[in-house]
This record gives sequence, structure tokens and C-alpha cells, in this order.
Amino acid sequence: MDIKDYVINIAKNSKLAAKKLSYADTNTKNKALIEMSKALLENKDYILSQNKIDIENAEKIGTSKALIDRLTLNDKRITDMAEALIKTSSLQDPIGEVIKMWKTPDELQIGQMRVPLGVIGIIYEARPNVTVDAAALCIKSGNSVILRGGKEAINSNTAIAKIIKNAVVTAGLPDGSIEFIDITDRETVNVMMRLNGLIDVLIPRGGAGLIKSVVENSSVPVIETGTGNCHVYVDKYADFDKAERIIINAKLQRPAVCNAMESLLVHKDVAHEFLPRISSKLKELKVQIRGCAATQKIVKDIVPATDEDFGKEFLDLILSVKVVDSLEEAIDHIFKYSTKHSEAIITENYTNAQRFLKEVDAAAVYVNASTRFTDGEQFGFGGEIGISTQKLHARGPMGLEQLTTTKYVIYGDGQIRK
Amino acid sequence: MDIKDYVINIAKNSKLAAKKLSYADTNTKNKALIEMSKALLENKDYILSQNKIDIENAEKIGTSKALIDRLTLNDKRITDMAEALIKTSSLQDPIGEVIKMWKTPDELQIGQMRVPLGVIGIIYEARPNVTVDAAALCIKSGNSVILRGGKEAINSNTAIAKIIKNAVVTAGLPDGSIEFIDITDRETVNVMMRLNGLIDVLIPRGGAGLIKSVVENSSVPVIETGTGNCHVYVDKYADFDKAERIIINAKLQRPAVCNAMESLLVHKDVAHEFLPRISSKLKELKVQIRGCAATQKIVKDIVPATDEDFGKEFLDLILSVKVVDSLEEAIDHIFKYSTKHSEAIITENYTNAQRFLKEVDAAAVYVNASTRFTDGEQFGFGGEIGISTQKLHARGPMGLEQLTTTKYVIYGDGQIRK
Repeated sequence: MDIKDYVINIAKNSKLAAKKLSYADTNTKNKALIEMSKALLENKDYILSQNKIDIENAEKIGTSKALIDRLTLNDKRITDMAEALIKTSSLQDPIGEVIKMWKTPDELQIGQMRVPLGVIGIIYEARPNVTVDAAALCIKSGNSVILRGGKEAINSNTAIAKIIKNAVVTAGLPDGSIEFIDITDRETVNVMMRLNGLIDVLIPRGGAGLIKSVVENSSVPVIETGTGNCHVYVDKYADFDKAERIIINAKLQRPAVCNAMESLLVHKDVAHEFLPRISSKLKELKVQIRGCAATQKIVKDIVPATDEDFGKEFLDLILSVKVVDSLEEAIDHIFKYSTKHSEAIITENYTNAQRFLKEVDAAAVYVNASTRFTDGEQFGFGGEIGISTQKLHARGPMGLEQLTTTKYVIYGDGQIRK
Repeated sequence: MDIKDYVINIAKNSKLAAKKLSYADTNTKNKALIEMSKALLENKDYILSQNKIDIENAEKIGTSKALIDRLTLNDKRITDMAEALIKTSSLQDPIGEVIKMWKTPDELQIGQMRVPLGVIGIIYEARPNVTVDAAALCIKSGNSVILRGGKEAINSNTAIAKIIKNAVVTAGLPDGSIEFIDITDRETVNVMMRLNGLIDVLIPRGGAGLIKSVVENSSVPVIETGTGNCHVYVDKYADFDKAERIIINAKLQRPAVCNAMESLLVHKDVAHEFLPRISSKLKELKVQIRGCAATQKIVKDIVPATDEDFGKEFLDLILSVKVVDSLEEAIDHIFKYSTKHSEAIITENYTNAQRFLKEVDAAAVYVNASTRFTDGEQFGFGGEIGISTQKLHARGPMGLEQLTTTKYVIYGDGQIRK
């Protein structure tokens, strides 16, 4: 069978499963998650043995240590995956919730009911835990899922997918609820991107290259999970202790993730006092500062910032710094360079806080808190399938609710339109 | 200037306007709509003179009467547009509404606030009223709009766009809030479809060919407004009076629109009684019936239905009819042929009604009411920019709310992530 037929067959199976899954009862879906959890633990040795093959292959071709770490499973990581499944089973089922209900002048009662999206395609790279996490969120929200992992983790993913696929069938969900594409040929992605009518949405998870390629080439709707060039703006009226604490946290608690801070803006009236303080702290913590001309005058021995630096997501111990003349300039700078992920103002001034919240356009806009909170878990969603940086459908952390759409259910009594 | 630069310049203007529009106050936006309304009435003669050119051109090339009717403006149609603007100005502004607000264990207060999408591109065909209606809904919801109308109405649209563009500037909104592409070269659409980052969403309005082409070729997110192959299922427990009234209305009140009924399903236990009754009524009303084998046995002198007929949106006085063995068969038939627009069951049986509502996947699912109600006005949204048949972002009639996204606004007090 050629690749196109192979992928289309998988998608057709998934579509059929989606129909039944869309009204599967909550208990059965929860049971499936619990069975998945059990099966992972029972087959731990098998998964680890397959994972070992992936790691050996990666080492052979000289893969970077960071990537091998992402790829690596161990006892604890499998136990974590199994526990996450139990946690997902305990989350509230979003399906069937009626968000609004109203009556029209014709006495029609119209309700807007949450229903699954249908078939969700996940295209991801090295991390095998995505296989489990993504499947769990899709199943719980009544969607079937087509998983297409990267070649680096193909043996681990194939093993895990087989195990969890069997588990959901044991629990009584349709075969096809979880589908895994075990061919790593790039052509499988090309086919997925054209399956309008069979796949309802594609979510690419991974590097910027993968995401860009899917966004540009897919005719199936895509949810873009993107990069974060996140700013912290220290206002004229900032509390310096809060500012320092938040900047250190936003920059350093986990520098390689999308909600980490990449750029610091400081109001000119406080720059002379605040910049020396924060920069000596950041230097201690091995953060390289790339500053604008004004910053260079205040802080010695820093790298001059280029225009490109202000547009960059470093994902590293590097921070661009700019002195601004006003709140307006800060907002304009963010408008120009932001990827609209997470932006923060540090201020004690009520009006400036409100203006920042109103005028800055991003998935999450903060007053006096770290940008690192932009996360499904931290927001209280119980998990996330990614952080959307697009505006359509879902914006910000995507939990179960963001994997749903709605339908209108209309209760009539013989009404006709006049 | 070449076409690409021309379109990009327009989009850049629109993007800049969108920034200010996103937090424009409600009074200014309402004033803009009222100014637009006034300006249309004041320039009625000019608009009609330009419209006359379009009509003459259309007649010269032998355009169909139906299309010329869509294209034609007259005194009443312009007054209607002007009145619709006043009505839109009186709708509630969706921007700034906080849909949800909660507190996390870290004592962060997180609100989900409605904000505009940004820049909306509308690609449409012959009807010049779209120029006004679409612009009004976009402006009221704080979005800037790029209008790209068809060549048939280019003179009418250019005139109208110039008038309403000036009106919003008079009211104090940024120049660029309404942009109109006055080149009808197809290349303008090709450029728009690749302007990720400048255009936030494209909404094609028009024939199936236009919509399909935009869905398949745009890397900018698209909201698909689509076709409706809508079914009415007459259950074993139907009230025949309600069934007849609803079928006549759904089929005939306006046969050429997407929420009109295209296919009738009848339970076998009532087919012998109900089919002769409804078919004689439909024949009186000049509706051609294309029936399945079972229908042909009960109703004489009808056209045999092909498989293709069941998948067709006739938009005409034609109805496909099928006798089904059960509710399940009706639901399966709808799953197979439906375009997921509007589907109805006629029944007095509580459990069957609930099952139909739960199991049928469509933008709008009805019990005992006409499918013709799927409409922004009828739903109480005050107007609509189209009816979405996709699942992402918006599904069903799209009013002001569907032209928004949300952002999370987070009120902190120095919190950092642990």
C-alpha cells in the first residue's frame, strides 16, 4: 500500500471512531484513561527496551545531549505518564456542557452545547510522552486522535501507541480512537495536511520549522502553538522588589520554554536606579545582557543589542534590555516585536496597569506576575495540549475545553420562519 | 506599483488601524456606524449611478437575471443598508466583556477577556450590500476590515467603500479601519491568502468554488461559510401537522439559501400514511420529489433518487426523499450525507428527540422546528457575517461575538512560579 492510501485508511478509521466517541459516556472515557495508565505500568520493561533502541540510534548519529534527554524514558518518567492519565480521568468532562441557553421571540429555546472537534491530528517531534498526554486529552474530550511522531522516537512511540490503543478498546471505546502513524516518511505529514473532511484540526508541536511548514501548507485547519518573545516592562511606578523577583523567575526558572522572558523594558525615570541593581543580579546568574544605547550608558560591559536581538526568542541565558521614555513607547515596542504570547508590566500605578492590560495584545497579559504562569496546569486547566499563539479558536494554554467546539441544540414546538 | 505591493500596503495600513481600533471606545465605534449610515443616504444618487454602470456591464456580457438582481441597488436597498447600520450601532459591544474570571491557588486572578481578532479580510462576490454589512460588523467588534469584492460589482463597491471609509474617519476612527481593494485581478486574492501576520482571518463569502479555493490555498486562517445539505427526519412518533408545516417552510420559504431543506427522511412505520400526504402538498407547490425505492412504491410518478441526489444541495424546488427503518438509520444517513449545517427531527417522543440532539453532528440540530431558523438575526445576534460550517473558532451563525477572540488578563501581586 502506498503512503497516501495508508494515511487515508487511518484517517477513515479515526473518523468512524470519532462518531461514536463524540457521545461516549464519561465513565467509559475515564475507564479508558485508567486502562491506559495500567497498561503503561504493566509494559514498562517493553517500553524501556524500545526506547533504548531509539537512544542508541540517536547516539550513533551524534544527536545533541539535550535532544537525547528529551527522548529518554526511565522508570520515573513512565510512572509520571501513568499518573498524569489518572489525573486526566478525574478532570471534568467538557462534553455536553451547555454554555448558554436562551429563548427567542418565536419561543424557540436555543442552547449552545459543547461537543468534540472530531478527529485531531497531532504532529510532533522527539518527546515520547506527547504520545500519551495528547491521546489522553483527546480521548477525555471525546475526540479521536491521529498521532504522527518524529523518527527520533519511532520505536518508543510505536510501543506506547500499541499499548494505549489496546487499552482504550479494552475499556469499550471504538477501535480507531487512537491511531498512530508508524511510518516516519515526511510524505505522511503532507497527506495529513490535505485531508479536509477526514481530519478536523492539526496541532503541530515542536520546533519553529515544523510549525511554520504546517501553517503554510495545510488546508486542514491548524492550531498554531508558537514561539514566545515575552517582555517584562518595569514601569516608572514599579515596586523594585517585585520587579526583581519576577524578572529572575521569568528569565531563569526555565529559560528554554516559550513563556520565559526574553526582553526587559525599563522606564527612563527608574532606569538609573533599577538597571544597575537587576543587571548585577543577572550577571551573577550568568545571564548575558544585550542592551540598547541608553542601557549601555548605565550598565557597563554589556553586549550592544541589535534590532534583531529585540525580535529574538533566545530560549537561553540571554536577555535584551531597552530603556523606554514612556508607557506608550513600551506598548509600541511590544506591538512591534512581540509574538503575542505573554507580556507583563510591573507597576503600582492603577491607571498604567489598566492601560497595559487593555492595550497590549497577547494571549496572556500580566500585572505584577511572572510570564511563566502561562501554562494549562498553572491556569487550572489540569493539563494542556500546547499554548496557542494564534487568535482563532483557542488562544493561550489549551486544555480540554479548547479541544471542543459547540453545536446549537434547538427545542421547538412546530415553529416555522415567517 | 505591482499588485503584491499594493495589497501589502493596504494590509499594513489595516494592521496599524487594528491596533487603535482594538481599544476604541464604544461611543466612537457607534458614531462611526451612524456616520456611515448618514453618508450612504446623502450619496444615494452617486451610488445608484455607479451601480448602473455595473448593471449595464453585466447585461452586456449576458449575465443571468438572478445575478443581476443580486447586483442591483435601488432606493429601498440603500435605505435598508443605512437602517441596518443604525441597528448594528445599537447592539451591545462585545469587546472588553470578561467571560470568566477565577483565582488560582497562587492567588492570581485570571480573567478571560473578549478582544477583537485584528484584521479581517472579506472576499466576496456580486452583492454590494456585503460591503456595508461586513464593514459594520467588523468595526463594531473593533476589527479593521479589508474588503475584496467581485468584479461584477466593482463600481458600486468602490463608491460605497469610499463613502463609508470617509465616514469612519470623520467619526474619529483611524484611517485604514476600512480598506477596499479596487483591483479585481485574481492575484489580489492570492496575495491576501499568504499575508500571515498582517491579516488575522479570511472569510470568503460566495459560491462553493470561491470558498473551496480559499480553504485550499490560504495559509492565513480561514472561516469557512459553506453549503447546507439539510435534512428533516419525520420520526415514527411525529405529529404530522407539525411535520407538514415545518417541511413546507424549510423547503419553500426561501429555497435558494443554505439553511433550506434538501432531503426528507421518513420512518417506515409512518411512511404509508405521511408520504402521500406530504408529496401531494409538495407537488401542488411545484416541488420535484426524487425518492428512494421504498418511496417510489408509495408515491407514484416521482423521479428515482440517485446516490448523488442524497449528497446534493439543490437550492431549488427539488427534494430527495428516503424511507428509513429506524432512528439509527436516519442518524447514519445524516452522518454520511450531511454538510453539518442544520438538521431536524420531527417527533413527540422524548427519548428520540434527546438522542437526535446528542448524536447528530451539525452546527444546528432542531427538534420540531424549521431549519430556516439557522440565521444570526433569528438566533438573536442582531446580524451575521455568514454561517460557519467548520468546527474551529465559530460554528453556525456568526454575529459580533464570533468576530472576537479572547486574551487572559492576569492580576498579580508579585507572584512567581515555583
